[in-house]
Amino acid sequence: MSNRQNCDSGSLSALELFERVTIQGDKVRSLKAAEAPKDEIDTAVRLLLSLKLMYKATTGQDYKAGSPPTDFTPVNNAPALAEDDDFVDPWTVQTSSAKGVDYDKLIVRFGSSKVDKELISRIERVTGQKPHHFLRRGIFFSHRDMNQILDAYENKKPFYLYTGRGPSSEAMHVGHLIPFIFTKWLQEVFDIPLVIQLTDDEKYLWKDLTVKRANEYAIENAKDIIACGFNINKTFIFSDLDYLGMSPGFYKNIVKIQKHVTFNQVKGIFGFTDSDCIGKISFPAIQAAPSFSSTFPQIFKGKEDIQCLIPCAIDQDPYFRMTRDVAPRLGYPKPALLHSIFFPALQGAQTKMSASDPNSSIFLTDTPKQIKTKINKHAFSGGKDTIEEHRKYGGNCDVDVSYMYLTFFLEDDDKLEQLKQDYTSGALLTGELKKALIETLQPLIAAHQERRKQVTNEMQGISTQPVKQDQTNISNVIFNLWQKQ
Amino acid sequence: MSNRQNCDSGSLSALELFERVTIQGDKVRSLKAAEAPKDEIDTAVRLLLSLKLMYKATTGQDYKAGSPPTDFTPVNNAPALAEDDDFVDPWTVQTSSAKGVDYDKLIVRFGSSKVDKELISRIERVTGQKPHHFLRRGIFFSHRDMNQILDAYENKKPFYLYTGRGPSSEAMHVGHLIPFIFTKWLQEVFDIPLVIQLTDDEKYLWKDLTVKRANEYAIENAKDIIACGFNINKTFIFSDLDYLGMSPGFYKNIVKIQKHVTFNQVKGIFGFTDSDCIGKISFPAIQAAPSFSSTFPQIFKGKEDIQCLIPCAIDQDPYFRMTRDVAPRLGYPKPALLHSIFFPALQGAQTKMSASDPNSSIFLTDTPKQIKTKINKHAFSGGKDTIEEHRKYGGNCDVDVSYMYLTFFLEDDDKLEQLKQDYTSGALLTGELKKALIETLQPLIAAHQERRKQVTNEMQGISTQPVKQDQTNISNVIFNLWQKQ
Repeated sequence: MSNRQNCDSGSLSALELFERVTIQGDKVRSLKAAEAPKDEIDTAVRLLLSLKLMYKATTGQDYKAGSPPTDFTPVNNAPALAEDDDFVDPWTVQTSSAKGVDYDKLIVRFGSSKVDKELISRIERVTGQKPHHFLRRGIFFSHRDMNQILDAYENKKPFYLYTGRGPSSEAMHVGHLIPFIFTKWLQEVFDIPLVIQLTDDEKYLWKDLTVKRANEYAIENAKDIIACGFNINKTFIFSDLDYLGMSPGFYKNIVKIQKHVTFNQVKGIFGFTDSDCIGKISFPAIQAAPSFSSTFPQIFKGKEDIQCLIPCAIDQDPYFRMTRDVAPRLGYPKPALLHSIFFPALQGAQTKMSASDPNSSIFLTDTPKQIKTKINKHAFSGGKDTIEEHRKYGGNCDVDVSYMYLTFFLEDDDKLEQLKQDYTSGALLTGELKKALIETLQPLIAAHQERRKQVTNEMQGISTQPVKQDQTNISNVIFNLWQKQ
Repeated sequence: MSNRQNCDSGSLSALELFERVTIQGDKVRSLKAAEAPKDEIDTAVRLLLSLKLMYKATTGQDYKAGSPPTDFTPVNNAPALAEDDDFVDPWTVQTSSAKGVDYDKLIVRFGSSKVDKELISRIERVTGQKPHHFLRRGIFFSHRDMNQILDAYENKKPFYLYTGRGPSSEAMHVGHLIPFIFTKWLQEVFDIPLVIQLTDDEKYLWKDLTVKRANEYAIENAKDIIACGFNINKTFIFSDLDYLGMSPGFYKNIVKIQKHVTFNQVKGIFGFTDSDCIGKISFPAIQAAPSFSSTFPQIFKGKEDIQCLIPCAIDQDPYFRMTRDVAPRLGYPKPALLHSIFFPALQGAQTKMSASDPNSSIFLTDTPKQIKTKINKHAFSGGKDTIEEHRKYGGNCDVDVSYMYLTFFLEDDDKLEQLKQDYTSGALLTGELKKALIETLQPLIAAHQERRKQVTNEMQGISTQPVKQDQTNISNVIFNLWQKQ
């Protein structure tokens, strides 16, 4: 948190400043409400005032709550990048460190907030549930407005979940499951509706794919997503290519967003150029629209003020920074976010995972034997070169991909801690650590494959009626998507 | 035609050259087929060869029929504009001449073809109908590929009509009827399906309107359009804001078009800038999509190869130049076009007609008395200042707005010619010419108002079921639109 406050304000855009003033204002109010020590409040107020001054110096206007700068320059990756900085946008994640991206720096750059102990404790207190290990282990490490969501939950105000996937191929790997595993937990804990967007239109626009193929990938991916086991009565999975042409509410929100975002803005946020096709340029509105409840009149009965919580990998944040800027101008609540770190490739956190390289990760279709071979052969090791050296100096968990994967998939905290200690001390060899991962992933993938098979069977013979505006049981829509095959 | 061939090729873009080579190739083929005199064929062939050379010099590639240059620079209004040139794009029509825009120059600049006597005769020959007075009098003065449409008609190949309107206000004036009057004639003559797009999304994006208001304007305008009396079993009127969210076929075509058009291209064609919202930037694809039959699976049963004929005012041509460039890359036929001249404001052809100025034209809601007063008071006269001078020197029909309006609405050729002669000679005074116009428009508007009332009555109590993909009687969709009020 201190990092964020000390960072060089000279490079901040009007919008970033606006958001910081807003956050700091909230902080001052909550400190006062909590009757915090006077000096703590005073420090916070001084920072608030200096942020307001900076805001005025940058925009020429006084800060006004709820009215973001109209002609803002949005957070831009490029100019702020120093040579040793990571690069993160929805299409590129780049780092030179084997430990992976520096997430603390990313929080500063994106202007989000850290998921700290306080927030995790509050989640536990409010929900009465043990926080998911993704929270406890810093896998969902950053957020925006998560406290608002907890306020809503405490006050029994409705909210909903929104996540998604870009179906760029039939094959999904274990890393793709992260947002869905966590979203399923959130849905269970809060017992709320969930919408899942499959951006097959995006994949058509960005990749060398036909519309038909992109849509087929969406359907294949939907099967894997359904297999995650969401509450079938509160989950709506849709492909853009299908649902946009079935929902006037969706298109109306898209046009509204598109009216309030300029090319300058998407250029700044996403790095688009004049040579990009107009489909890419206008696409961000399509990923933004499900953040607003009026996009789903069949679920929310036309209510426009239901706040949305978006669990996603941090590279998707640019879409939702844009969405949060537009929301108040449309009279909609800003979506809250929970950001995850990236899932590393088997070859190491600084290499790119690729669906076209079967050895870059464990796929949901892999056999137990393939899982074993891939991990033994390709998982980057933080161990030493010889057994003797390893016993003497120990392995390095910070760069060991098997250990990283275990933090994602091994739920038992004690066992994980034991593995870390033993590996670091040298008591545990690389082969043994890999074995622990293999034994964790094999049953997990096998169970997923079993559920996916059941999905197929369950779906057969279900209604093929098109979605109706007044349809209350939204689960049918999953079946619709399925049946379109 | 000679004008077009002599114009400076140095300023032509690759796409323009491509189109000229194509047109000239067609010309050579038709001359040969018609066994034209050898020297005429030779001249045409020489021009074809030199156009091909220019094309190669510009693009670095050999001309290949059906494969337009991939990275083309589209027709751009701005650089070609000399000081005395008119400016025409979908939002601005500007001329300094009281006679109005120089349409021959526009044909050259846009690279379209003149509706000449030969084409008009062919229309008469092929359809067995007397050509509409809009054709005989040069009101629909320009076209693209109209001969292809006549070939299709002769060969009993299906094609369809597409026109539209941007519903910027409730009020429509007589000028707005021009494309619809002509489209109705084309539908009667060819007996083919017609789709009418109401771009309420465009008006929302460009004007200070809410989505709701823009959609209401579309519904009001639809009533006036229905009152024109189209074949109710072959006409589909839709608002974008409604239909886009009801038709996956429409959205799929929009995304396909958006993938094949860059920001550079829409910047060149429409003059968009970086400060324009992304909705404007991507909108041209929405106006383009109805040019392809697969946008309407409920009408064309999924057929993708049915050619479209678009009657529209020439200012809409930029949309369809773009569409025609994209079509072959999507495997769709290029739409053919018939372009009309602009309808002058009462105050003169060089002033802008405005729906917000009730005196700038005759509105479809005007009473007989209002029509009379407006024409007598505001219609710019080409007559002389005094009766004596007028009798001596005569009036000038080229700038007289009452005479211009009569060319649009007085169907009797002999009577129109008599009025022209008498006014030019001075035998007919301005007041008498105005009287002729008043007597033409009063019954025409009254009849329209009567039909509009009947529309209302007819529509009441009709089905409110949403459009189904397999609906064969497309007329219901008009009712749907209507019933949504």
